[in-house]
Amino acid sequence: MVVELINTGSELMLGRVLNTHQQWLCRQLADLGYVVTRQVAVPDTAADIRQSVREALARADLIFTTGGLGPTSDDITRDLIAGLLGKKLREDAAIVDEIKKFFAGRNRPMPERNRVQALVPEGAIVLANPRGTAPGLAMEAQPNPFRDGGKPSWLIMLPGPPRELRPMFTETVVPLLGHVLPLENKFVCRTLRTTGVGESSVQEKIDGPLGKLVHAGLELGYCAHMGQVDVRLAARGDSAEKIVSEAAAIVRAQLGSAIFGEGDDELEAVVIRQLTERRQTLAVAESCTGGGIADRLTNVPGASAVFLGGFVTYSNEAKEKFLGVRDETLAQHGAVSELVAREMAEGARRASRSDYAIAVTGIAGPTGGTPEKPVGTVFIALASGRGTEVWKMFNPWDRLAFKEVTARQALNQLRLRLLA
Amino acid sequence: MVVELINTGSELMLGRVLNTHQQWLCRQLADLGYVVTRQVAVPDTAADIRQSVREALARADLIFTTGGLGPTSDDITRDLIAGLLGKKLREDAAIVDEIKKFFAGRNRPMPERNRVQALVPEGAIVLANPRGTAPGLAMEAQPNPFRDGGKPSWLIMLPGPPRELRPMFTETVVPLLGHVLPLENKFVCRTLRTTGVGESSVQEKIDGPLGKLVHAGLELGYCAHMGQVDVRLAARGDSAEKIVSEAAAIVRAQLGSAIFGEGDDELEAVVIRQLTERRQTLAVAESCTGGGIADRLTNVPGASAVFLGGFVTYSNEAKEKFLGVRDETLAQHGAVSELVAREMAEGARRASRSDYAIAVTGIAGPTGGTPEKPVGTVFIALASGRGTEVWKMFNPWDRLAFKEVTARQALNQLRLRLLA
Repeated sequence: MVVELINTGSELMLGRVLNTHQQWLCRQLADLGYVVTRQVAVPDTAADIRQSVREALARADLIFTTGGLGPTSDDITRDLIAGLLGKKLREDAAIVDEIKKFFAGRNRPMPERNRVQALVPEGAIVLANPRGTAPGLAMEAQPNPFRDGGKPSWLIMLPGPPRELRPMFTETVVPLLGHVLPLENKFVCRTLRTTGVGESSVQEKIDGPLGKLVHAGLELGYCAHMGQVDVRLAARGDSAEKIVSEAAAIVRAQLGSAIFGEGDDELEAVVIRQLTERRQTLAVAESCTGGGIADRLTNVPGASAVFLGGFVTYSNEAKEKFLGVRDETLAQHGAVSELVAREMAEGARRASRSDYAIAVTGIAGPTGGTPEKPVGTVFIALASGRGTEVWKMFNPWDRLAFKEVTARQALNQLRLRLLA
Repeated sequence: MVVELINTGSELMLGRVLNTHQQWLCRQLADLGYVVTRQVAVPDTAADIRQSVREALARADLIFTTGGLGPTSDDITRDLIAGLLGKKLREDAAIVDEIKKFFAGRNRPMPERNRVQALVPEGAIVLANPRGTAPGLAMEAQPNPFRDGGKPSWLIMLPGPPRELRPMFTETVVPLLGHVLPLENKFVCRTLRTTGVGESSVQEKIDGPLGKLVHAGLELGYCAHMGQVDVRLAARGDSAEKIVSEAAAIVRAQLGSAIFGEGDDELEAVVIRQLTERRQTLAVAESCTGGGIADRLTNVPGASAVFLGGFVTYSNEAKEKFLGVRDETLAQHGAVSELVAREMAEGARRASRSDYAIAVTGIAGPTGGTPEKPVGTVFIALASGRGTEVWKMFNPWDRLAFKEVTARQALNQLRLRLLA
């Protein structure tokens, strides 16, 4: 099946916004077995949108557009597509009511220009948008005047705002696809997420053991982020379930505790879940990550039940005063040292009366390195009732990447301890 | 001038990585006056890359490709483009030496497969890559067999990793463009960044006063992010400089202190700069932002000179113990209250002996709201030698957006105070 994605928006072409739709929709579709084969972004001008849709209609079975369904004069996708396919637009009274309700809920009358959002091309399916005023639209080009033999294409128009597009896709488009464009073969996809092991080591460990299954139809893919490698396992056909679950078992056996989750699991959410299940608490003391570990942890809803608090102790004075790091330790070993990391973690645990405390101290750069402790040097400590451990790491990346990788390493040490 | 961008990579189509090249390159090019008119992403397969390059050659004066210059078997962009244009590849001895040096610097011999990266199509210009092994390539399709009348196109091939692509673009591609594809007319572009004012208010204030200049050729654009609106001012031709600088003066007069910077300035960097200039120091006490303010501040190189430290006090106990918030205040007013925000800021300032302290306490959600204090309620306090001020805000967004907007509001209050 040929699937294409068209993102419309002049702000994309000026580079004023990041196109997050591409990754999100490509990911959702790939995991459902509908791999996007081409994505294109064009400005909000009639000629560009018309040309890109016409080209897609000539090739694709399934086409998604994003944007251009709003009430303003540059929102022209609906009109252009109806025009291309020779469909008339009619006002849908039910949609007008929905839009009026949306504004009534905000104590405002519906502006007259929003009425255009209730226009529906003949034969189109309306996709409800409870988070906004622009409904999505799905329609079949049948016959399709742009394709060899008039082969039909499905066109699905989604609104631009991610908070409207995402639930519409999940709640309405996914079930619709299952009915109007079912895959010929069963498709199964699982992603296992690992941390603490490099991409080439992950490959070395599993490429061999998975060889037979790849031969039997397993699609094996890797994706490396900063300090994290995802392993994607997919298969099609009647034995897809069996192939993927055998592959997952092999990957688990080979990589063991390096696997921290599946699908969209995030490391910080896994750690919060572990602590919640054990009814244990955490504090953090950060120097070089500067609040990045606390920030990640508190992105997780419910973190407040287990995360007691954090200290960002950039200065030596703060390390002494709030964490009880000793003056002599700082003077003798320097702020970036195994002993200071240890005293920071123990101090944070003592001060917060938490079960666990993580501490990090290092040199994020770009300046501050020395021959003995170059930029990228970092010590990570984990204190608990069973004592304190310290790891020395070397993350010679730019400042932001250093912070991200170090935060992940620290959270991973806690995760591994909580597994034990 | 028609400019197109082709991003290659199967991982893009699976949605495993975010395509940050699109925004970055589109932004850089637009600010230079070369607006991208179409961006396309395709998998690393020969047919897809070949088709997309051929289509672009039929339309565009300037084409960028990203990715596919590495040493592995799926890195085929160089070969395919040379093939399309009928150019032979020859090994460039100087590049081989550079690659050998790159590996020697890492105490490794050059793997034989990296030699493919030294292949250069006849007539191509080699773009140095001091951060990696794959040089970029620039070549002119002249005559261009795919375009009406054989009109030439420039093709610029850039490596996939952002840390290699970005400096290569800035240091090598920008000067090259000025020579081989100069703009017909002078182009001037400035972006003023505002915070604390909504997009429609920004428009209302400046659309009228800028009307005459728009008539004279000013291109006026807006881009709203979370809690931030950028105003882009551009013009072409001999009077471009004059038009844009008059427009900037009008925008500054209308929006005043809502403007925090120009170009790529970030709010946190502006605040760090203000404090550095005044040799003053800052501490933060965060409840609902959970370390997000400290994290942003410490993303700025040199932050350690003025940012003394932070407290992430999620629990009431932590607020009392580390910041000296009074038990009675918490009991009478609740943790999310004007008085608690005030005591947090004053406590953080006292404990850190900083010149300024920011504190935030609020309800990030998704749970924890009440009818009097719904999700999104937040108090921001700023303590200094001149006393303490508290602002009540309402940011009813999802958890991550709430944290981002609140952090920005808090930093902006400090920025405004430091202006005064």
